Amino acid sequence: MAQTLTEFDTIAAISTPIGEGGISIVRLSGEDAVKIANRVFKGKDLTKAPSHTIHYGHIVDPENKQIIDEVMVSVMLAPKTFTREDIVEINCHGGIVVTNRILQLLLRNGARMAEPGEFTKRAFVNGRIDLTQAESVMDIVRAKTDRARQVAENQLEGGLLAKIQAMRQEILDTLANVEVNIDYPEYDADKVTSEQMTRVSQSVIGKIDGLLKTAAEGTALRNGLATAIIGQPNVGKSSLLNYLTKSDTAIVTDIAGTTRDTLEEYVSVEGVPLKLIDTAGIRHTENKVEKIGVERSRKALDQADLVLLLFDSSKELDPEDRELIAATANKKRIVILNKTDLGQKVSAAEMKELTNSEVIPTSILQRKNLNQLKEAIKDLFFNGIENSNDQVMVTNQRQVGLLEKAKKQLQDVIAALETEVPIDIAQIDFNGAWDTLGEITGESSPDELVNQLFSQFCLGK
Amino acid sequence: MAQTLTEFDTIAAISTPIGEGGISIVRLSGEDAVKIANRVFKGKDLTKAPSHTIHYGHIVDPENKQIIDEVMVSVMLAPKTFTREDIVEINCHGGIVVTNRILQLLLRNGARMAEPGEFTKRAFVNGRIDLTQAESVMDIVRAKTDRARQVAENQLEGGLLAKIQAMRQEILDTLANVEVNIDYPEYDADKVTSEQMTRVSQSVIGKIDGLLKTAAEGTALRNGLATAIIGQPNVGKSSLLNYLTKSDTAIVTDIAGTTRDTLEEYVSVEGVPLKLIDTAGIRHTENKVEKIGVERSRKALDQADLVLLLFDSSKELDPEDRELIAATANKKRIVILNKTDLGQKVSAAEMKELTNSEVIPTSILQRKNLNQLKEAIKDLFFNGIENSNDQVMVTNQRQVGLLEKAKKQLQDVIAALETEVPIDIAQIDFNGAWDTLGEITGESSPDELVNQLFSQFCLGK
Repeated sequence: MAQTLTEFDTIAAISTPIGEGGISIVRLSGEDAVKIANRVFKGKDLTKAPSHTIHYGHIVDPENKQIIDEVMVSVMLAPKTFTREDIVEINCHGGIVVTNRILQLLLRNGARMAEPGEFTKRAFVNGRIDLTQAESVMDIVRAKTDRARQVAENQLEGGLLAKIQAMRQEILDTLANVEVNIDYPEYDADKVTSEQMTRVSQSVIGKIDGLLKTAAEGTALRNGLATAIIGQPNVGKSSLLNYLTKSDTAIVTDIAGTTRDTLEEYVSVEGVPLKLIDTAGIRHTENKVEKIGVERSRKALDQADLVLLLFDSSKELDPEDRELIAATANKKRIVILNKTDLGQKVSAAEMKELTNSEVIPTSILQRKNLNQLKEAIKDLFFNGIENSNDQVMVTNQRQVGLLEKAKKQLQDVIAALETEVPIDIAQIDFNGAWDTLGEITGESSPDELVNQLFSQFCLGK
Repeated sequence: MAQTLTEFDTIAAISTPIGEGGISIVRLSGEDAVKIANRVFKGKDLTKAPSHTIHYGHIVDPENKQIIDEVMVSVMLAPKTFTREDIVEINCHGGIVVTNRILQLLLRNGARMAEPGEFTKRAFVNGRIDLTQAESVMDIVRAKTDRARQVAENQLEGGLLAKIQAMRQEILDTLANVEVNIDYPEYDADKVTSEQMTRVSQSVIGKIDGLLKTAAEGTALRNGLATAIIGQPNVGKSSLLNYLTKSDTAIVTDIAGTTRDTLEEYVSVEGVPLKLIDTAGIRHTENKVEKIGVERSRKALDQADLVLLLFDSSKELDPEDRELIAATANKKRIVILNKTDLGQKVSAAEMKELTNSEVIPTSILQRKNLNQLKEAIKDLFFNGIENSNDQVMVTNQRQVGLLEKAKKQLQDVIAALETEVPIDIAQIDFNGAWDTLGEITGESSPDELVNQLFSQFCLGK
């Protein structure tokens, strides 16, 4: 898609979370942003304000001269702004009514209500950021742990963009050679070109594989790793849950004023965001004698990416324990031998042989070995991928899907050239891979895809 | 309390509502605000930034050089700021993790976590606003209707402050005369002074009464008018509730992502915020045949400031209807004769005589006469007080309590002078009234009171 600076109408939205807080921001972007803000602002003449300056005054309804609020107004003129358009931010006293009132006033005075993600979309369409950076903006907003924020931040700084662009450049350089061969077929270099296409395809596939390897962790970092705590009654599920959710590192979604029951519970274990499954069920059932865990656990198991499987190590394993081991056999799991303070009848070595999984003996009651458990979760999570702060990760299904498609196209190129298909036929897929990679950054994305992508953003972003 | 500019440490807090939104603001105020922000900011040197300017850059952890977020930083230098101190606002991508991370970084680099309301408290202590204006700041944030916002805005602009100051001035002018008499007792003007004190006391009492008259409405505007919808099953309670909560004017606290059941439901009727009582109960019970309303309604009635009492006008009144009329006799109430579409067996005139209340015949089903109902609610609410946009109102119990105390002191002055108590004795209460009124504006408020008041604020304000 051509990234020319287009003229747009002026949009407005409330850009801070809705609620009662100290400050709210109503944001305008577009050619008339300053003019529209000036119509409802009593103070300095904003049309004469230099870029990147802040002005004290009042928002006043021009129809009835009623003062709406005392505000600070920021004027930022194109092109050095979030959208590359003129931006005005009205910084008002927080609160739902006053913020909405100011927004309504702007809409009555020439602005249009922004669609979700429209500010970021303009930053993309006006060429300030690519699609992976746009996606990272929302990932930063939604980040559940600091590690997830860091990955998104790397993406915002262009980490993934640079990798994709490097791959596209490799393909492009080769395509230039192919074009020469096709245009001048008498020039005998077919073999050389064929070898180069194969070599570059292999090279790019290798790089794609490197990125795809990060996808499971990247996606889990972004969305949380669905984690089920499984075990028989009174084995310590509830204690583990309490330990995880009550500890200092804990819940990032614990927002005052919202009900615990309706929230997904997230905990951050060494930077790994665990999305805990069925915590209400655990809290509820651990208080009474409940028949058995397996049936109840089945549903939690279905959704789980990670299983924390608890046993009472002071008792011999019973048939139900063995049933739980069998039921979780295909899952990423960590086995916890709890209640070591009561003396062990099941050893870690024995359990390791039985489950072929990491086994951690703990006393959750006495807070023993819980750091080892946390380390095990972290190691399992980052297993096989580099865990450095500037690691570039693939974090969503859109990126994964396109990488896989490009890989397939390049594999087809290699297969075609092996069977001595003419180069201009193999080139179709080679071209295709170049386009596919361009869709990741948005350089070759169809409009409707772009619209659909931004519609998932939150309002005011 | 003396309002001298004191030196304070530098405070920091998240000033936007917590949640996932486009933008969050972390705010610093104090002598070192710019210096501290500069330690974690990579971009322009903020210590050289002119006041009221905005700067693009990154927040970077100085310990490990990790980029935390891409930000816009606003620098506002004393004294033309919200607190009259240097203020820095870091405008980051919204989201819980990134915002908290920036706050933590500021705290590690020299800032102290702000207490609730501390920014506004500094604006007060540094003499930019008085206590009534400080209170209005939170009232704007919490306003449930536009009318409530307007009253708070008037207060922020100093409407109440001006009235209180005028009263204090009247007292002060008189006190000056009294002092003359006490210092020069031989100068024979006792009678003149006594008459002046009585006259001024009466004058100020009259003004206090004018303000107190607005208190019920002002407080209800601020907190919502607790409203019970009462009536027998199938009389239309649920339909009325749906009409009120589903209409355009409706709910201002309908925040996406929070559960309806846990919320108080507010509706705005012609600018009057009704806090609806037991709406879950009404929704729940109207769907089944329920024994009777009286018992269930009793609790709702206890809390209600306003009762909307519904009857089915197509049926004769039964003993239970009469019981409801008796039970609500001491409440502000509006009687609604519903189901006029089915033909009326009870007339409005008849009902008016029986209840001595405003009676509105409606067909909620056919949306008939509902505007008349709304007008009746509005008239009942603003009954006796001026309903203009620049009306100054007393909006909280602190103000009401102090006004009543001052009134009592002035009444005591009048009573004392009537019984020819010496002027210097009567003067004690006259002085007291002057102090009491000063407590409203904070000019004579003890520190602990001020602390307690600001502790009710939200964080970051």
